Amino acid sequence: MCDFFVLIARAATALSKKSFTNARVSRIERAIVTAAHRPDADAPDAGKGQRVMIIGGDGYCGWATALHLSKRGYAVSIVDNLCRRQMDDQLGFNSLSPIKGIHERVRRWKEVSGCDIDLFVGDVCDYEFLGAAFKKFQPTACVHFGEQRSAPYSMMDRTRAVFTQTNNVMGTINVLYAIKEFAPECHCIKLGTMGEYGTPNIDIEEGYITITHNGRTDTLPYPKQGGSFYHLSKCHDSANMLFCTKAWNLRTTDLNQGVVYGLSTDETDMHPDLVNRLDYDAVFGTALNRFCIQAAVGHPMTVYGKGGQTRGFLNIKDTVRCIQIACDNPAPYGEMKIYNQFTEQFSVNELAEMITEAGKKIGLNPEVISVPNPRTEMEEHYYNAKNSKLQDLGLEPINMRGEFLEELLKQIVTYKDRVDQRLILPGVNWKESSSVAEVMAK
Amino acid sequence: MCDFFVLIARAATALSKKSFTNARVSRIERAIVTAAHRPDADAPDAGKGQRVMIIGGDGYCGWATALHLSKRGYAVSIVDNLCRRQMDDQLGFNSLSPIKGIHERVRRWKEVSGCDIDLFVGDVCDYEFLGAAFKKFQPTACVHFGEQRSAPYSMMDRTRAVFTQTNNVMGTINVLYAIKEFAPECHCIKLGTMGEYGTPNIDIEEGYITITHNGRTDTLPYPKQGGSFYHLSKCHDSANMLFCTKAWNLRTTDLNQGVVYGLSTDETDMHPDLVNRLDYDAVFGTALNRFCIQAAVGHPMTVYGKGGQTRGFLNIKDTVRCIQIACDNPAPYGEMKIYNQFTEQFSVNELAEMITEAGKKIGLNPEVISVPNPRTEMEEHYYNAKNSKLQDLGLEPINMRGEFLEELLKQIVTYKDRVDQRLILPGVNWKESSSVAEVMAK
Repeated sequence: MCDFFVLIARAATALSKKSFTNARVSRIERAIVTAAHRPDADAPDAGKGQRVMIIGGDGYCGWATALHLSKRGYAVSIVDNLCRRQMDDQLGFNSLSPIKGIHERVRRWKEVSGCDIDLFVGDVCDYEFLGAAFKKFQPTACVHFGEQRSAPYSMMDRTRAVFTQTNNVMGTINVLYAIKEFAPECHCIKLGTMGEYGTPNIDIEEGYITITHNGRTDTLPYPKQGGSFYHLSKCHDSANMLFCTKAWNLRTTDLNQGVVYGLSTDETDMHPDLVNRLDYDAVFGTALNRFCIQAAVGHPMTVYGKGGQTRGFLNIKDTVRCIQIACDNPAPYGEMKIYNQFTEQFSVNELAEMITEAGKKIGLNPEVISVPNPRTEMEEHYYNAKNSKLQDLGLEPINMRGEFLEELLKQIVTYKDRVDQRLILPGVNWKESSSVAEVMAK
Repeated sequence: MCDFFVLIARAATALSKKSFTNARVSRIERAIVTAAHRPDADAPDAGKGQRVMIIGGDGYCGWATALHLSKRGYAVSIVDNLCRRQMDDQLGFNSLSPIKGIHERVRRWKEVSGCDIDLFVGDVCDYEFLGAAFKKFQPTACVHFGEQRSAPYSMMDRTRAVFTQTNNVMGTINVLYAIKEFAPECHCIKLGTMGEYGTPNIDIEEGYITITHNGRTDTLPYPKQGGSFYHLSKCHDSANMLFCTKAWNLRTTDLNQGVVYGLSTDETDMHPDLVNRLDYDAVFGTALNRFCIQAAVGHPMTVYGKGGQTRGFLNIKDTVRCIQIACDNPAPYGEMKIYNQFTEQFSVNELAEMITEAGKKIGLNPEVISVPNPRTEMEEHYYNAKNSKLQDLGLEPINMRGEFLEELLKQIVTYKDRVDQRLILPGVNWKESSSVAEVMAK
């Protein structure tokens, strides 16, 4: 497309952006605008001029995102201390899929795609390291996945609760200071979680809520009710980032992500050595992936309690596209954008039903059992979370229903022999979280 | 006055107060209940059977509280790592009043009052120490003042920002685990701050707000907007404590305290060696105390910006009584009570005017200057915070206006020669907070 048409298309996009959230814009107008957004998003030079630092780029979401952006012309670096791999080693867990080491992954990616990814192995809690990485790479955007991301891990014992909040909250403070000090124009894209909201009895808005109270009105941060030390660490991050955004005039985006499922993206499928991790243990495995693995190996799907727990979900292929959209739409200086990053919401029982149906189609015979809920959470509740903002910016969601689940189950069956069934049952109880000494004594 | 007349007098007082939270309880019934509450609150055995651990008991609020409760028959222990004294040493600050070391203070208290205070010198971030203190003392209530409590300190540089959030948030997590592990019936009374709420354009409720949104209603944690890493650390504490209260069935009270002013309590006045600390430097000195000291030494009162910043205030004599009320009214298991602990609200300009008036009466000639605001905050805003719950439980507030300010100014004049005027001007700017390396380079 010649420059003139690009210009026109982008002008139309820009013009319409102001009124996106406005309900007065008709659906048709909206659809046209959406379509106009980044028609070249998949082009090999789509990210030209952008330099994206991906913190936590060796993890499940981070790795897929690094490859997705790298393939599309974004200059990408990965910052990771590889602690996720160490946690598996310490706990005797492993990814279902046989993942390669990060150095080998990056080398293979260069071979397969011709694209370089800069690798900085170190800890964001080490400011000397982080500052050096910022100075060296000079990012225009920093995508921050680099946190301990398991609720059960954070509830195993006091030491891990403190580790989770220290690592996550102080790491994010460091990232914000590094941006202020070394790259003040850098757009900070921070991964939060839908779990920050808890399960309020009112609709969940995207980050902010307008409250009328005693005759006055204000738009305030949506009240948060994190349900584990992990979820709470993300609440704290959001509050800290909002403050820094205003005090230091930063540009930031907070992505409250739902539960991510799936294994493949176009890029991780390009070579077996690029395969993403897939967790099925009771600590790091999340609901849908864990259920699929249980179904594939003939273990009953373990529904916690009544199974009415409802959450937002998205395919990992949508995760990577959401991150690209966030990169392409930096927040204005001094304003923190907040998007709810999920595409569909399901209860745990609905997941189990869909997997049962899909499993039967490919010759499996999935069963469901209810196990005592190790968490402290409501098992039947109202849940209605908004998620239109990313779709307004061009996201076309992938649905879970249909052939996807069958494909995922087939993929998993090929790894069947790698499953250690001892890891599947819940082992971390919210009420029993205690000091290491007490946990060990049990 | 005999008990009956005390009862009647308190009933009348309580009746005259505006708001009771439960409309179904008749005003009269409620007033009698309130009045009946602890008519013997000042008796020497008022606290019989209660064992109160005061974390941060060497600090401004903690020391006064320890003596107040000790005098009234509560068994008191102080847990403190004395880091507040070290901060003064490191920054070249000092209390205006000549305070004694904690060991000397406790010995003198025993001499003067006949009451023992157990002393545990150590860090709540050290769980081995904290657990040992809990096992040894077996508290029935734990009052947690033990946090870095200065907003400017938390904004000095990245290292102190991280220290503040680590120290405060992880310390509180440790306290909650220690209660769960060693004293599950212990009532946790945690000091928060009114600053957690920020300055929303709607009324500030006491901790929770009922929101009707899209036709549905829920009561949720009040949205928080902390305005410094310090204030944010208190927001994080509140969120963590609410979660633990529900998950572990703890009994907790969160006291969102306003700005505390004053020097004397009945107990600290009992001997010069028991004198409380009084901070006037730009880092630890809070608005009213700092203004009084400026007025007393002939330094203009330094109003930041327009001076319309409005906050809640309370006399330290009310702080100690609020803590006693909280001790005497433990939260039910699994429920976090939240009170706004202040008695009056004033703008910075109003404080300066009141001090000017009081100063003139005792022969001073106070002046006011506006200095550039080092903080990021609104300088003119709506502010209406609720504070009826503690008064419903029997608090009879002391007013700032009247003779109090004259007395405070007179007290301060006696310490006039100890003032180091170099410490008075603001030295910490919110926008300039950076790494230690950059701060040093300036």
